[in-house]
Amino acid sequence: ALKALMAPLHPADIADLLEQMDQGPRHRLIDLYGQDFDGEILSELDESVREDVIAALSPRVLTEAVRSLESDDVVDLLEDLDEPQQEAILEALEMGDRVAVERAMSFPDGSAGRLMQREVVTAPEHWTVGNAIDFMRASLDLPEQFYHIVLVDPRHRPVGHVTLGKVMSADRVTPLKELQEPSFRTIPATQDEEDVAYAFNQYHLISAPVVDEDGRLVGVITIDDAMSVLSEENEEDLLLLAGVGDESITDRTMQIARQRFPWLLVNLGTAILASLVIAQFESTLSAIVALAVLMPIVASMGGNAGTQSMTVAVRGLATRDLTGSNALRVLRREVTASLLNGLVFAVIMGVIGWIWFGTMMLGVVLGLAMIINLIVAGLAGVLVPLGLARVGVDPALASGTFVTTVTDVIGFFAFLGLAGIVLL
Amino acid sequence: ALKALMAPLHPADIADLLEQMDQGPRHRLIDLYGQDFDGEILSELDESVREDVIAALSPRVLTEAVRSLESDDVVDLLEDLDEPQQEAILEALEMGDRVAVERAMSFPDGSAGRLMQREVVTAPEHWTVGNAIDFMRASLDLPEQFYHIVLVDPRHRPVGHVTLGKVMSADRVTPLKELQEPSFRTIPATQDEEDVAYAFNQYHLISAPVVDEDGRLVGVITIDDAMSVLSEENEEDLLLLAGVGDESITDRTMQIARQRFPWLLVNLGTAILASLVIAQFESTLSAIVALAVLMPIVASMGGNAGTQSMTVAVRGLATRDLTGSNALRVLRREVTASLLNGLVFAVIMGVIGWIWFGTMMLGVVLGLAMIINLIVAGLAGVLVPLGLARVGVDPALASGTFVTTVTDVIGFFAFLGLAGIVLL
Ligand SMILES: [Mg+2]
Ligand SMILES: [Mg+2]
Ligand SMILES: [Mg+2]
Ligand SMILES: [Mg+2]
Ligand SMILES: [Mg+2]
Ligand SMILES: [Mg+2]
Ligand SMILES: [Mg+2]
Ligand SMILES: [Mg+2]
Ligand SMILES: [Mg+2]
Ligand SMILES: [Mg+2]
Ligand SMILES: [Mg+2]
Ligand SMILES: [Mg+2]
Ligand SMILES: [Mg+2]
Repeated sequence: ALKALMAPLHPADIADLLEQMDQGPRHRLIDLYGQDFDGEILSELDESVREDVIAALSPRVLTEAVRSLESDDVVDLLEDLDEPQQEAILEALEMGDRVAVERAMSFPDGSAGRLMQREVVTAPEHWTVGNAIDFMRASLDLPEQFYHIVLVDPRHRPVGHVTLGKVMSADRVTPLKELQEPSFRTIPATQDEEDVAYAFNQYHLISAPVVDEDGRLVGVITIDDAMSVLSEENEEDLLLLAGVGDESITDRTMQIARQRFPWLLVNLGTAILASLVIAQFESTLSAIVALAVLMPIVASMGGNAGTQSMTVAVRGLATRDLTGSNALRVLRREVTASLLNGLVFAVIMGVIGWIWFGTMMLGVVLGLAMIINLIVAGLAGVLVPLGLARVGVDPALASGTFVTTVTDVIGFFAFLGLAGIVLL
Repeated sequence: ALKALMAPLHPADIADLLEQMDQGPRHRLIDLYGQDFDGEILSELDESVREDVIAALSPRVLTEAVRSLESDDVVDLLEDLDEPQQEAILEALEMGDRVAVERAMSFPDGSAGRLMQREVVTAPEHWTVGNAIDFMRASLDLPEQFYHIVLVDPRHRPVGHVTLGKVMSADRVTPLKELQEPSFRTIPATQDEEDVAYAFNQYHLISAPVVDEDGRLVGVITIDDAMSVLSEENEEDLLLLAGVGDESITDRTMQIARQRFPWLLVNLGTAILASLVIAQFESTLSAIVALAVLMPIVASMGGNAGTQSMTVAVRGLATRDLTGSNALRVLRREVTASLLNGLVFAVIMGVIGWIWFGTMMLGVVLGLAMIINLIVAGLAGVLVPLGLARVGVDPALASGTFVTTVTDVIGFFAFLGLAGIVLL
């Protein structure tokens, strides 16, 4: 009954189901599967529940499951497991696959070498369409999925590739060289996977050969794996910007609390910094309590405007639309846009402050502080991410805290300082 | 000289270059290209500069450029142009292409029908490998890029597909049916492109046939176009969360200021709301000025914790990892994690407040307010995105404002209210 129910589900959907279950029911479902547990489910599972599921599988089921996977998926599976589980999986593999997986694991974490599959269909560069077709028909173990024939020189360096569609539609005598795709690019095995994903998206690649330091072919990356990286990198940026670490929806409560703690602690430090600024103006504040009522508005507007500029800058850096050559122009534009909005809000808030507390000069001070803080917001929103990127820190990681600290501090300082000068 | 310099550049890189130039140099570069302006550049350009570049091309160059594009890329180009430019491009097309483009444009904006290409290689479901190869060899206009042969029934409804790799490696007599991919799925032409991107990523699709209401084949979507959608949707979520509209790094200053204004205005409204809460406690504040110094800390910590929970929830909704079936569990986990951190920060801040101002009860009030606000942050962080999604509003769009409003209001209210009761 269970099998009838689960059969139409894709392994990715079964993995999602397992992720959403509590541990008890999850283990019962795995037991019900028994021998029929599909290896694909393992590779679709989120890291946070993978270890639990692997631990729940019997050695025999695990061996079966792992052997059915492509080598690149085994690598992805291994990466996040601890030593004993890695060992168990490596031992489950056949010798040839094990060598391929260990080879891939020798490349740095997050590199192209980890993403690639070893199985590639190659042809000497001088072959004709007929040679290639005869070779493929005679070949017994072509990869499960492949879209290109990679042309290699005598030293096994890729020099171009041909889509299967072109091979299909050309005459047998046509040299493969004449059918080469113009979009051909190779990828160094040590390249960061984020750069790989960028290249696939920017150049509309479907698959790309991976080469070692000598330019020799070592594997191929296909677009579906590049797409997974792209989506993970985007998720990472979004979560980092909000001060949430490398966390997933299935993590345990304690893990989550612990991961978020450091960013809240940093925020506490910056909030205390802002309070120290306010403390400098205690006498002003005790003379005019209206200032305490209005000061969060100045800080909040600055924080929002700063976050707007910062998000555009962080995204621009990630998509490489913000570069050294247009940084100055983007900065000028952000500051001007921020100033324009600052002027409008200065008028609005100036009038509100005046009417609310009946003191015109209070409105003027509020308006001026608003203008100053929004200019600062535009500046910090662009300069902070750019500066972090320049010194090699991921701008998604730390920009938010810096920018809002600047706008809080300047906001309170400008408002309370001006008030002290003008109103007392 | 220019051509020698630009020749090795991919059209996507040339598009990026044009995006980063000012209008003057941009037009000069286009003029230098003259007749050789590549249509691909147009389809790689960001919407914000597309109109400008198209306006700068002579009608003859535009015609050449547009004719060289695939029909799905022409559709993507047309979507964001105004009426007269759309007309100019449609007139540049050959009759057959024009019909295909107009057909695609008849599907709703952002639907699968707009993403698909019309060119598909199909085979009757009873064909053998040999039939398919002979057909392809005889065929004169196969698509530029294709990876699958779609099997159709007599009423032209797709029933499965076969990769070219499988066709290559099988015997001529093998029925295509036996080589079908298990991952086959069709996509309704009216499906939202966001759901299309999700399906490609979730099920590792490389291409998928698009069908009309009667299940008949109308086109095919390939993974490279799904990847573009995925990356655009991610960008959209990131920008929306920060209150930045559908904006790009090449937009004009005035456009930017205008697009960001509404969110700043909403934020002003919510900031005033928070000020109104503070105003209720003017007498408390004027009695104890230390409260004005410390109150931003409570609001800021709540805002941060709320944004953490909210970002996880928004992302979980986008990746469909947060669903009705685990919503309650995620809520419980977020609130507990938030409470745990709240307890720690209550102790830290309680001690700091006590030492700073020499009043133990001030530390107690600060700590209690912190706990209350962090619990509220966890609640609002999950319930606001879930609630917005339930009523059909994009949670990325409005969650941030709601969540921080709640934490500001509750933060000020709890801290100043408790202080009024305990300290006065
Ligand atoms: Mg999943
Ligand atoms: Mg990985
Ligand atoms: Mg990375
Ligand atoms: Mg793969
Ligand atoms: Mg990153
Ligand atoms: Mg771009
Ligand atoms: Mg671009
Ligand atoms: Mg579009
Ligand atoms: Mg959309
Ligand atoms: Mg396309
Ligand atoms: Mg969306
Ligand atoms: Mg704030
Ligand atoms: Mg998932």
